[in-house]
Amino acid sequence: MSEIILIKIKEEILAENKDLADQLRERLDEKGVFLVNFMSSPGSGKTSLIVRSLNHLGGKYRIAVIEGDVDSAVDAERVAQEGVPAVQIQTGGSCHLTAAMVDKGLGALSLDSIDLLFLENIGNLICPVGSDTGAHLNVALLSVPEGDDKPLKYPRIFQTADAFVVNKTDVLDHFDFDLGTFRERVRRLNPDAPVFEVSCKTGLGIDLWCQWLGGRVEAAG
Amino acid sequence: MSEIILIKIKEEILAENKDLADQLRERLDEKGVFLVNFMSSPGSGKTSLIVRSLNHLGGKYRIAVIEGDVDSAVDAERVAQEGVPAVQIQTGGSCHLTAAMVDKGLGALSLDSIDLLFLENIGNLICPVGSDTGAHLNVALLSVPEGDDKPLKYPRIFQTADAFVVNKTDVLDHFDFDLGTFRERVRRLNPDAPVFEVSCKTGLGIDLWCQWLGGRVEAAG
Repeated sequence: MSEIILIKIKEEILAENKDLADQLRERLDEKGVFLVNFMSSPGSGKTSLIVRSLNHLGGKYRIAVIEGDVDSAVDAERVAQEGVPAVQIQTGGSCHLTAAMVDKGLGALSLDSIDLLFLENIGNLICPVGSDTGAHLNVALLSVPEGDDKPLKYPRIFQTADAFVVNKTDVLDHFDFDLGTFRERVRRLNPDAPVFEVSCKTGLGIDLWCQWLGGRVEAAG
Repeated sequence: MSEIILIKIKEEILAENKDLADQLRERLDEKGVFLVNFMSSPGSGKTSLIVRSLNHLGGKYRIAVIEGDVDSAVDAERVAQEGVPAVQIQTGGSCHLTAAMVDKGLGALSLDSIDLLFLENIGNLICPVGSDTGAHLNVALLSVPEGDDKPLKYPRIFQTADAFVVNKTDVLDHFDFDLGTFRERVRRLNPDAPVFEVSCKTGLGIDLWCQWLGGRVEAAG
């Protein structure tokens, strides 16, 4: 009987991706660039949070943005209006960003003139989770209209992200979203990760979030 | 030089899935069961639309529901409260339902006593699109808080679904969502698909949507 050849495509791809992600992180460390990966469902407000954050922290850090989408350049155009370098990655059909895609994005930027780099992942609560982008910090965003049951349905992203931002708190009165219940559900999966409550529309809570984010950049630098 | 062996894993898996999906459709046709696949982002209101639809159409058809989620049985529990047969599929990590998963769901139901079967896919605008579930009708749901730019960012689901439902119209005043713009963007990608405007919270628009859905069930029967 001949030997069975087992090809574990997914594990191999993930291991290769992890190696490249580690290399990217080293390269970014050498250049003094802190990379933040934003993940959420479609329409939770990733771009809005990025715009709010770069406006808040833009006086202190030189910021650039890499936008990921299946199609279009809507988000990069919006970010570019703020006067920061913006790169749009179009994945075609892929449901998450890989380290190789981020590597291409980095190639389009001048890393010597960047302190803080925001990466907007594809709108998806599942696929981006296992794929290391080379980021130093992974932030998961959830918006009030999506409901407070998401930690029950998509536990992995809530187990693995470093911090959580609840957006669209300005419409809390119009939805059945209980902040206490949500916090408790997150705490059960990820006891140490902070949860920030913001409204990117009104600006409420952005200062606290940015204060914490700035602290993380300083701690890394 | 030896021949190159090319293994196109993804194409093979999709072709196998399509074959099984066609077999499922035949089996459902023989039993007189009409299968509707609901797709959307997390938290757009798929379960709410299913509950509204089964309450509206429950007097006319014998309805059952198959719920798909990465984890938990929250949605099946909610549907079961309405007194209809409810099956929960937990995919573990998978970001969409396959025909094989639906096949397992069908095995848990008595098809002879069902006319209309609702299938709630995983909350995701990308992965479910290429994977035929065996459904007769594919419905994509979008909620107002997600924004009217989704057809630009996720064109494939808008190109391929048979009908669209815009949910949470009760909060239109609180969000920058232009129904005319959205309809125009959908029309460019999918000129013949109807777009229904509903609020699963207030019930507004459910009658029109269910009238159309009932018409599709009749036409198939």
